[in-house]
Amino acid sequence: MRAGEFELIDKIRRRANVGPEIRLGIGDDCSSIVVPPNYELLTSTDLLLEGVHFCLDWTDLFSLGIKSVAVNISDLAAMGAKPVSLHLAVGLPANFSDEQVEQFLNGVFAGLECYEVSLVGGDTCRSEGPLVISATVQGICHKDQVITRGGAGAGDDLWVSGTLGDSGLALHFLQMNRPLSAFLAERHYRPEARVVLGQRLAIENLATAMLDLSDGLNGDLSHLLRASTVGARVELERLPLSNEFKDELRIDQSLFDLALCGGEDYELLFTAKPAMRDLLEQLSVEMNLSLSRIGEITSTPEFDLVMASGLIYQPQISAFDHFGSTKDKSRE
Amino acid sequence: MRAGEFELIDKIRRRANVGPEIRLGIGDDCSSIVVPPNYELLTSTDLLLEGVHFCLDWTDLFSLGIKSVAVNISDLAAMGAKPVSLHLAVGLPANFSDEQVEQFLNGVFAGLECYEVSLVGGDTCRSEGPLVISATVQGICHKDQVITRGGAGAGDDLWVSGTLGDSGLALHFLQMNRPLSAFLAERHYRPEARVVLGQRLAIENLATAMLDLSDGLNGDLSHLLRASTVGARVELERLPLSNEFKDELRIDQSLFDLALCGGEDYELLFTAKPAMRDLLEQLSVEMNLSLSRIGEITSTPEFDLVMASGLIYQPQISAFDHFGSTKDKSRE
Repeated sequence: MRAGEFELIDKIRRRANVGPEIRLGIGDDCSSIVVPPNYELLTSTDLLLEGVHFCLDWTDLFSLGIKSVAVNISDLAAMGAKPVSLHLAVGLPANFSDEQVEQFLNGVFAGLECYEVSLVGGDTCRSEGPLVISATVQGICHKDQVITRGGAGAGDDLWVSGTLGDSGLALHFLQMNRPLSAFLAERHYRPEARVVLGQRLAIENLATAMLDLSDGLNGDLSHLLRASTVGARVELERLPLSNEFKDELRIDQSLFDLALCGGEDYELLFTAKPAMRDLLEQLSVEMNLSLSRIGEITSTPEFDLVMASGLIYQPQISAFDHFGSTKDKSRE
Repeated sequence: MRAGEFELIDKIRRRANVGPEIRLGIGDDCSSIVVPPNYELLTSTDLLLEGVHFCLDWTDLFSLGIKSVAVNISDLAAMGAKPVSLHLAVGLPANFSDEQVEQFLNGVFAGLECYEVSLVGGDTCRSEGPLVISATVQGICHKDQVITRGGAGAGDDLWVSGTLGDSGLALHFLQMNRPLSAFLAERHYRPEARVVLGQRLAIENLATAMLDLSDGLNGDLSHLLRASTVGARVELERLPLSNEFKDELRIDQSLFDLALCGGEDYELLFTAKPAMRDLLEQLSVEMNLSLSRIGEITSTPEFDLVMASGLIYQPQISAFDHFGSTKDKSRE
């Protein structure tokens, strides 16, 4: 039999570190944070449901714990904020064992440690259906340094960190029962929130607008453009692709759309003035993280995906929509 | 067919008010709040699952929306904080219609309006299982006025607002297919978070420790006592009971335990120095809300429920545990 709710909360509480901004952590009706003068408090919530966002046949619980934390923190990275605290609510299926709960929590705590975030509160209950995970992360950012989606202007360069489509390719392989390489498994199960990059861009005032890529470049770019009331011209030959992705592309060219619409890249997409090119290239070298200039912002509200030939490309699959099924995604 | 995720978010966004503390609401990767100098930011998360916390055969979606907001805000009331913002994440069953989503959201917005809280973010997705609701509320409180669970001292009076057991009695009736009176329905489906009381107690420095009663007096009092490392002596004849509860008690004395362990009272339980009695009685009159002195804090770590005869009472049912089933609650 599994331990009761209060026993589990006590267990979690004993493992929770408490950072300097935390006045009250787990154990009261609310957590309490002290926000330094001239800083804002940023918050994001993610709901992850078994069967929709993840499948327990395809992921181990430790990886799921880490990923739940990372994808939530990625939203803070996208504003340039420093992550501070996490509230975690979980609905545990009745047949979950203490060992399974432990594996999941070990992953959560590994993620928290990686980003130096304190677990400060949450909720635990039984679920009569699937595993339910709700994570709410809070962070701080100087009021003059918050990078929203709405600041892009015509003539700005469009940049993206890392490589695109790896996580989508991994999901595609999982759906076909193909084993994953270590690289693809890492990209799919253990995405890294680009927290350091986000903060550097914010503190050094390098970016004009930013978001994180969770639904795929094609869909997420449209959110940034709409918020900034601008358009964009994306040069497809400039999209950063991993060697493994390129290898697969040589065999099946239709996989290219995964780089545009695969989702779960958790890279940062941002805009910057052309005057910042040298500084961004320096930053890329310093951080050992590729930053690719993939296009530019235009004043017309449309955006075009331009091929090397100069022709406009039209993806065959649309953006990731969590109202659609993960398994049916390629048919949407 | 139901509207897509982004369409739904747009719809919600158009209805969301934005209060003075909100720098960024719905529409970016994170919300952003400005916390006034010398104030702390308090946060609480609740996860509500169909089949565990509520049953759609027994509640309409409008009431569920209001209640989801109120029970979350009740945690802020319990610290003496002013509610500011809510993040709402919902997993919607595939068979939910646009009308059902609308009914639920109407309830959520009614709750937000009632407490003057801004909806600033969240997440929406399809659920392959039950309806999933995760609410995270944030509020502010002056750093010298936050009332924790840990401040009770021996000799303090123990107080409770409102009446106890009404919601538990309502659930008991629902389980027996008995119709609810308007009073019991209100207490069960539309509990009121005691926000004004909580803030008055905090601002006027009247309470030494506080929490809200979600699991029942018997269980929640033990949390307060443990946090304060004290004990208590509760005089059962002083427990505030509604006329309707008393009427039922005359017919079936075993219902008394619902006042101790029924759960979902959402009243405030707090401790105060005896010197505050007059001020608290004045406050009760002024607010037209009963405040009952039900016992006192002792230095020994145990707590006793004392009957009029002087004998110690032992409840037959234990505290509400969300790992147990709602329906099986009376058998735990």
